Amino acid sequence: MNLQDTIRTVPDFPKKGILFRDISTLLKDAEAFRCLVDTFAAELKDKNIDYVVGPEARGFAIGSALAYKLGAGLVLARKPGKLPCETLRYEYALEYGTDSLEIDAAAIKEGGRCVIVDDLLATGGTALATAKLIEQAGGVVAAIRFAMELTDLPGRGVLEGYDVDAVIKY
Amino acid sequence: MNLQDTIRTVPDFPKKGILFRDISTLLKDAEAFRCLVDTFAAELKDKNIDYVVGPEARGFAIGSALAYKLGAGLVLARKPGKLPCETLRYEYALEYGTDSLEIDAAAIKEGGRCVIVDDLLATGGTALATAKLIEQAGGVVAAIRFAMELTDLPGRGVLEGYDVDAVIKY
Repeated sequence: MNLQDTIRTVPDFPKKGILFRDISTLLKDAEAFRCLVDTFAAELKDKNIDYVVGPEARGFAIGSALAYKLGAGLVLARKPGKLPCETLRYEYALEYGTDSLEIDAAAIKEGGRCVIVDDLLATGGTALATAKLIEQAGGVVAAIRFAMELTDLPGRGVLEGYDVDAVIKY
Repeated sequence: MNLQDTIRTVPDFPKKGILFRDISTLLKDAEAFRCLVDTFAAELKDKNIDYVVGPEARGFAIGSALAYKLGAGLVLARKPGKLPCETLRYEYALEYGTDSLEIDAAAIKEGGRCVIVDDLLATGGTALATAKLIEQAGGVVAAIRFAMELTDLPGRGVLEGYDVDAVIKY
């Protein structure tokens, strides 16, 4: 099926000049959601993934199903202050502003093979932060996958050296 | 397996006097995560679920895998301002404070059968808000499921009239 047809495009959200690509209309469509997860999983199946790491919050909404399908654990990369444990923290630039992410310092076993999954590759800031956190925690970033990629933004270059791909390209 | 053994209990988080039951240590454990999702799915399989509705953010981390397993769509109940569309909004009391949730007004088809899934039943405020939003949107709340329930808190009573259950009880 054509997954791109299930994405809703909203002009000027969350602020003027941003063309927002909304994954929520894909997720609520059972067939499209299954197709997205199966597409990721088929391509990752030989990578021996131990953990799917999802950045808050849309990364959880894709990462959980992918972790289930791959038989992997799900590690949450969370906004600051959400995790009740010793954390690692990384600050990064967003497409609009700055933010920080944290992971549980003990979440990933030494050498654990991780795939990062999120809805959108734009600047690459969130994914790079997540990759750095995984590496600090002792894990290996085996792949970084996105539902969508904005190819006119510098995200692909920011993630150079990592195995990066997206299902839908704009 | 004993899922309760995979839950981390943290005293005084997010504030003094709260004993925080942390689902993240279950989610990162591939076997426990699979067991949790399969337990939900086995029990829901005859309910003809069209949508899994997950409240932000831990509801996404469980709901996504459950939606995938059930062949359902995933609808996100989000914090205000996150959805780029016409939304329905409901304010509710938390165990500590108040908050609001929104869903896409058009996310659920008329009569669509929904299961709400979240990590923890405490006061029941988040789940009740989600149920009200589903009903306002034209859906049916076929079940409400939690990974954990704090049985000394009033959540079960708050959700009276709904089909409510939890896998782990404290």
